[in-house]
Amino acid sequence: MRATVVGGSGYIGGELVRLLRGHPEVELAYVTSDRYAGRPLRTAHPNFRGVNQTFVPAGEVGESDVVFLAVPHGASMKEIDHWATRAPRVIDLSADFRLHDDRLRARHYPGSAPDPEWLARFRTGIPELNRENLRDARHIAVAGCMANAAILALHPLAAAGLVAGTVLVDARTGSSGGGRVPDEGSHHPERSGALRMAKPHGHRHIAEIEQACGVGVHMSVTAVEAVRGVQVVCHVPLPGALPERDVWAVYRDAYRSEPFVRLVRERSALHRLPEPKLLSGTNFCDIGLTVTPGTEHLIVVSAIDNLVKGGAGNAVQCLNIAAGYPETTGLEFMGLHPL
Amino acid sequence: MRATVVGGSGYIGGELVRLLRGHPEVELAYVTSDRYAGRPLRTAHPNFRGVNQTFVPAGEVGESDVVFLAVPHGASMKEIDHWATRAPRVIDLSADFRLHDDRLRARHYPGSAPDPEWLARFRTGIPELNRENLRDARHIAVAGCMANAAILALHPLAAAGLVAGTVLVDARTGSSGGGRVPDEGSHHPERSGALRMAKPHGHRHIAEIEQACGVGVHMSVTAVEAVRGVQVVCHVPLPGALPERDVWAVYRDAYRSEPFVRLVRERSALHRLPEPKLLSGTNFCDIGLTVTPGTEHLIVVSAIDNLVKGGAGNAVQCLNIAAGYPETTGLEFMGLHPL
Amino acid sequence: MRATVVGGSGYIGGELVRLLRGHPEVELAYVTSDRYAGRPLRTAHPNFRGVNQTFVPAGEVGESDVVFLAVPHGASMKEIDHWATRAPRVIDLSADFRLHDDRLRARHYPGSAPDPEWLARFRTGIPELNRENLRDARHIAVAGCMANAAILALHPLAAAGLVAGTVLVDARTGSSGGGRVPDEGSHHPERSGALRMAKPHGHRHIAEIEQACGVGVHMSVTAVEAVRGVQVVCHVPLPGALPERDVWAVYRDAYRSEPFVRLVRERSALHRLPEPKLLSGTNFCDIGLTVTPGTEHLIVVSAIDNLVKGGAGNAVQCLNIAAGYPETTGLEFMGLHPL
Amino acid sequence: MRATVVGGSGYIGGELVRLLRGHPEVELAYVTSDRYAGRPLRTAHPNFRGVNQTFVPAGEVGESDVVFLAVPHGASMKEIDHWATRAPRVIDLSADFRLHDDRLRARHYPGSAPDPEWLARFRTGIPELNRENLRDARHIAVAGCMANAAILALHPLAAAGLVAGTVLVDARTGSSGGGRVPDEGSHHPERSGALRMAKPHGHRHIAEIEQACGVGVHMSVTAVEAVRGVQVVCHVPLPGALPERDVWAVYRDAYRSEPFVRLVRERSALHRLPEPKLLSGTNFCDIGLTVTPGTEHLIVVSAIDNLVKGGAGNAVQCLNIAAGYPETTGLEFMGLHPL
Repeated sequence: MRATVVGGSGYIGGELVRLLRGHPEVELAYVTSDRYAGRPLRTAHPNFRGVNQTFVPAGEVGESDVVFLAVPHGASMKEIDHWATRAPRVIDLSADFRLHDDRLRARHYPGSAPDPEWLARFRTGIPELNRENLRDARHIAVAGCMANAAILALHPLAAAGLVAGTVLVDARTGSSGGGRVPDEGSHHPERSGALRMAKPHGHRHIAEIEQACGVGVHMSVTAVEAVRGVQVVCHVPLPGALPERDVWAVYRDAYRSEPFVRLVRERSALHRLPEPKLLSGTNFCDIGLTVTPGTEHLIVVSAIDNLVKGGAGNAVQCLNIAAGYPETTGLEFMGLHPL
Repeated sequence: MRATVVGGSGYIGGELVRLLRGHPEVELAYVTSDRYAGRPLRTAHPNFRGVNQTFVPAGEVGESDVVFLAVPHGASMKEIDHWATRAPRVIDLSADFRLHDDRLRARHYPGSAPDPEWLARFRTGIPELNRENLRDARHIAVAGCMANAAILALHPLAAAGLVAGTVLVDARTGSSGGGRVPDEGSHHPERSGALRMAKPHGHRHIAEIEQACGVGVHMSVTAVEAVRGVQVVCHVPLPGALPERDVWAVYRDAYRSEPFVRLVRERSALHRLPEPKLLSGTNFCDIGLTVTPGTEHLIVVSAIDNLVKGGAGNAVQCLNIAAGYPETTGLEFMGLHPL
Repeated sequence: MRATVVGGSGYIGGELVRLLRGHPEVELAYVTSDRYAGRPLRTAHPNFRGVNQTFVPAGEVGESDVVFLAVPHGASMKEIDHWATRAPRVIDLSADFRLHDDRLRARHYPGSAPDPEWLARFRTGIPELNRENLRDARHIAVAGCMANAAILALHPLAAAGLVAGTVLVDARTGSSGGGRVPDEGSHHPERSGALRMAKPHGHRHIAEIEQACGVGVHMSVTAVEAVRGVQVVCHVPLPGALPERDVWAVYRDAYRSEPFVRLVRERSALHRLPEPKLLSGTNFCDIGLTVTPGTEHLIVVSAIDNLVKGGAGNAVQCLNIAAGYPETTGLEFMGLHPL
Repeated sequence: MRATVVGGSGYIGGELVRLLRGHPEVELAYVTSDRYAGRPLRTAHPNFRGVNQTFVPAGEVGESDVVFLAVPHGASMKEIDHWATRAPRVIDLSADFRLHDDRLRARHYPGSAPDPEWLARFRTGIPELNRENLRDARHIAVAGCMANAAILALHPLAAAGLVAGTVLVDARTGSSGGGRVPDEGSHHPERSGALRMAKPHGHRHIAEIEQACGVGVHMSVTAVEAVRGVQVVCHVPLPGALPERDVWAVYRDAYRSEPFVRLVRERSALHRLPEPKLLSGTNFCDIGLTVTPGTEHLIVVSAIDNLVKGGAGNAVQCLNIAAGYPETTGLEFMGLHPL
């Protein structure tokens, strides 16, 4: 299978290139960048030193079997007609085709109006929730990074009817989530060591979480000192004083066969709950939980690499499902310790 | 006034030495350390290069006007009879004399039994709540670092009757809060870049917060990549959909004349809510807040330097009040930007 | 004395404001910023929360007793005629009036041509080398950050005739040295964790070092993971196998009475040689050294806070000398440990 | 092939496990740890969550095809007779069998006396220098981390007779190089943000560099803020004013066919010379160079992941050569950007 990455100089684009180059069933046909056109991949992504491939302008892309759109929000819906002529399969990593609930889209992406026909074609790229629907899918909208981490943390509970009120989602994110364009907030002297609650409420990923889980959500986002990684801490009101092991049972049932969800249940204080730094480069979502003793207060913690399970890796996992490859193909990296 | 610092080689002890050396009304009489006895202060605290003072063993301390106890929990109650013979005034930075509610102490410090007479003598070292009671105080128990940040964030609300249910206190802390004894969790390859939810519930500082504010508290503590600093994010259920400006009014009334509480109300996304890194070395507690629009969900954020406003600085502020010095004496450092 | 800071929104400018606000002999008359004009200082420097002072446009500055120019290279020489009408004393922190050797200036600042009369008036702002000449000085050119650290490390040796060949100056610098304008190199995902040898040779500070010390210099600059701080490691060929204690004697003689140079001679491996992180916010230059046993290879290490002893603090020290104040006035901060 | 990792709970041991698990020709027979015996691998290395394998005590190891010794210096020479009975092939990652020059060993490892017969059997595990000698090798001593980076940077020059005097090797290292036992120096509040010149001269890796390259070396080691990674900056006196392109030609000739050495020759300031953070998890050694214009001063910079090309990865590469597998098998990871 021949694949095209549109927006290859961005951070998500770079991870798509890394994963697809290592994928035994895929050949990388085109990687686009208008800014870096004609220059080798390593000029944008120095980890590709030694790799002989150059960026092409978006306008010079020919046909291939799948196009990945790693472009800013708004660009996919504008260009979808074009890219659909370039490949029978389009996997979009922008937000444009994620929301099927008009009310949520209007609130969180005011003014955004994707073509309804295209929107109807796109299937939600969350394998753990939507695997059957992804088989043979031709158009897939991959979830947002923090949204994906929160959805995987909350969906089993919500599906089991165990969410008794508004959930508080406390998300912590590394700087790569902001993309590769420098601004005052990403300037190292300001961003280094930050604990910046950039978005105490109203983050757009709320829409995806509410759509996927059907529960009400408050969400706070804090920028922390890290380049990669998202950690999501969900504070959930249970409908009663459930024993912790009953909650665990819900998650074990939900994720028993999932290749990329790992339940973390350690006694050691050091790695008792999920942390993103161990997951850098991997497609894992680690999930752990604990109940405040004697209360109905459940804490579910999930962690991912925002560029992989929160983007490029999830997209490749969706492709594997859609194309009928073994689901873990090209996604076997186990992560580094220490890091 | 001549001052003694017991436990001078620890991190809080070092900050006491730094602040007292810069205090125009104080002369540093003794700084104790059994491990470093006879050696210059700089062997434990290299910022004291050029300072001619050595550690003395605790057993060789003579009389002075005030003794600061910067010792592990449990040590103060064991040694208080001794130290009380060394100075008419004792300021304790351990947890031993903070809790006057037996039920809270039994739950959070099981087995801890300070002498009731001594306990009755100690006054709570939180100037913003207890200033009048600290004037002429001879025995002062300074609050814990995260407790202090949370209490200053919540007390005005609680006093105004605006807390309509259990508060969620999400605390993030740097590594210096763990003290200077290395262990597996503080080993740099493991601790660097951590987002370690070391204590998802049941942290002992809950006791101080509940005692001071009279509200129920859930508290989660996450170790983040930082050496200094505590940030506390409080999620508070309001009794109704209060306008944000009414909440601000409560805080302005409470802290209008406070020299070390700053209300942070910025429009710029970059520093809109309090962050600890700006506060390193200062005695400030920055507080900001926001209401999730259309809801009763209030978010109050506070930040401090855990070793200063969360320990040594607060202790010096208490001394200033008790001794009748201007309250900001020796605590004028404004902090560094960038850092 | 009333002081004006031109370029007050930059990082050096912010440190000038911090130090001058704490200086008992100085009142801050004007702080200029065209970008932030009319807004409070805290919008550029959040550590000034609670401070009631606003930026003024450069064009609205009236008279005062001293003007500090914290402006980009090239701006000082263009505007010196103007600023000289605003105050009888001008302290320049740019490079414009540092170099009196035309050959060095031509090589390192090609095209730069400060007015020769103005150049002749400016005295070199390095108190340790030039104290007598700074008394009553009206025009002072403060040294560059890495240059200052290297000059203080090398000058005693050079003056004693103990430099037997080209010196290798290996400088490591934090990100604040690059100023506050974001670019690709300062973008947090790229800059975080960097060990970027941005300038393996040919750095402009070579000119200042060679001018001050009269020795030949190779200089390599590496950007390291830090916001503040410069560490300079000098590899010096000695004229013979000198015992280490003889080298120490040279430095002790040179710096015996210096208030801000500390010789670091520890046995403990942990803080045996100078490190910048301990010096954040201070005006100290720490210097240590060691000879490779059995050789003529001397290693001298110095460390400073690039924004203080490498800029604003050094400028205030120069002012203290010029104005006849005690030299350490306003510069007493001892630094934080741990940090 | 069945492989055993002795010392599997250390950082190098963990990386051996990671690489061997991903190696298509290898099955992991035993991973030893006395401390973690009977517990799953993830208790020491949380990246192995989901992996079903437990540590065994060293005493319970049966036969396999190759034993990797990831043990402290001194342990290999003590136990080699034992381990040689467990497998026909032994790959040692300690320093015990690296030095064949008695004079160098006596100076840098005083008191160390490996059995001469065993010493004679061990071949130097540096594929780029010693590939032919490694084919069919049964006993291999893998180079030290900083030594390997320096040797790869210097060997081509030395072999071409282009080193005209003592080389200065300035090494910068992350904290994982110190292993996993916490001490005061690795305590996060002290180690974070460090620029600690822990070893200004006399580091033991000098012995390996001098043995491999036959040139005199001064070496300084600075601990920098990083977990993984070694960067080595070599300052080399050339025999004359060689054009840079002639020096490049030497390196291109030497490394033209090397799968894991990449010559870095970029114009962009951002990634112009090698940096370790891009190499985390990879087996690459990146090498770049530049000549100070108009001089005989050559700067060669190399970077590696200390745990991979500086240990576990190099060991696997040696195994691939010795066993006749394609040399890159199991070592294909390209590294992450950004990180």
